[in-house]
Amino acid sequence: MTSATKRPAKVGRPRAVSDTTPETSPREQILSAAAALFVTQGIGSTSTRAIAEAVGMRQASLYYHFAGKDEMLVELLEASVRPGLEVSQRLLLDARAPASAAAALYALALVDVATLTNDRHNIGMLYLSPEVQDARYDVFRAERGQLQAAYATLGTRAARDVSGVDMPGEFLGSLLIQLVEVVIQRRRDNAEARIDADALAASCLRLLGLSGEAIERAAVAARALLAA
Amino acid sequence: MTSATKRPAKVGRPRAVSDTTPETSPREQILSAAAALFVTQGIGSTSTRAIAEAVGMRQASLYYHFAGKDEMLVELLEASVRPGLEVSQRLLLDARAPASAAAALYALALVDVATLTNDRHNIGMLYLSPEVQDARYDVFRAERGQLQAAYATLGTRAARDVSGVDMPGEFLGSLLIQLVEVVIQRRRDNAEARIDADALAASCLRLLGLSGEAIERAAVAARALLAA
Repeated sequence: MTSATKRPAKVGRPRAVSDTTPETSPREQILSAAAALFVTQGIGSTSTRAIAEAVGMRQASLYYHFAGKDEMLVELLEASVRPGLEVSQRLLLDARAPASAAAALYALALVDVATLTNDRHNIGMLYLSPEVQDARYDVFRAERGQLQAAYATLGTRAARDVSGVDMPGEFLGSLLIQLVEVVIQRRRDNAEARIDADALAASCLRLLGLSGEAIERAAVAARALLAA
Repeated sequence: MTSATKRPAKVGRPRAVSDTTPETSPREQILSAAAALFVTQGIGSTSTRAIAEAVGMRQASLYYHFAGKDEMLVELLEASVRPGLEVSQRLLLDARAPASAAAALYALALVDVATLTNDRHNIGMLYLSPEVQDARYDVFRAERGQLQAAYATLGTRAARDVSGVDMPGEFLGSLLIQLVEVVIQRRRDNAEARIDADALAASCLRLLGLSGEAIERAAVAARALLAA
């Protein structure tokens, strides 16, 4: 496949990435090749030239799609938090009472677990990379911060009637998103790791001190929320 | 300071690292400078030459202490899991009954939170680095795996009488160590972050479904275990 969809067709050598399908856009092919290199070679050791070679594209064609590897990494990182962030905006609106906040939190955890599980290259491995602490990644880190704030708000509301658990919302938010991100660690340890999304979402609620019954009700209500 | 403790004194230019004290050994100075560069520049972008320059040491002197930057990173990473690993071996021996396992788990969490909090450069940021997945870091990853296994064993024992919580021990272990490692994330987000070690250790037990009373008892017993 060439960049024909945006530019006149150019004849390049055969693509080195064997697992792309003809339906994949050049942009997606570039992102996938970049992600594979970033998580195996490191960000600093990955050149745009190596990415272009992996896609079987000329560097000039690659620059038509992206200004550079930072732009690719930003897009990959943002894609890993965006589904949760989007669904959280809707969930936050209605989840005022503790029970509905528990259901919303359960639903948000399911969405994030699915996103992190389905991310082909486990890009979350790079969240703590020194390179990603740079100002160029401010937007991504702000988005992840927003997602964490949604966990904090839902967690605080869900735990309102639980006695004996009194943690600042901000601390709670960091614990909850951290728990969900165990997916990244498990996939790193074992590429074949099966992630039990329900066990993980239930663990988030148990961390808040919710009872087994309350967690079961939240699990059912969460499915309804996500189907809506 | 020079490498005089091991070799005849050599006159070098003044050290660029201002915050080392005369009591720090050359080896520790190198490790500290290397850690600072690894977590800010990335592993791939840090050369032994840059490390030598940061310490104000000649590269040849640096190679007297370490074979290369991998050896430095291995030592830094291992130091971040070793205190927990050592205390866990002792704790595992006695903590058979659920209540004593809960106390042991609480104690282990306190030790690991302290280690991660006191690690000057927050080296845990590099746990998921692509470079650290290399075979050269097998020993470190095996040690972290052992620590995770200790969490799994203590967590399983502590939760034995809790009904409704039925997670495979291995999954439980990954959740518990992940929760403790929130310290890394919080320090990354905010260098001044205060970590409430007790709130975090209590969260580990709450995740297992333990009651507030059981957690309070474990907290008291944990102090006694660590004082022993």
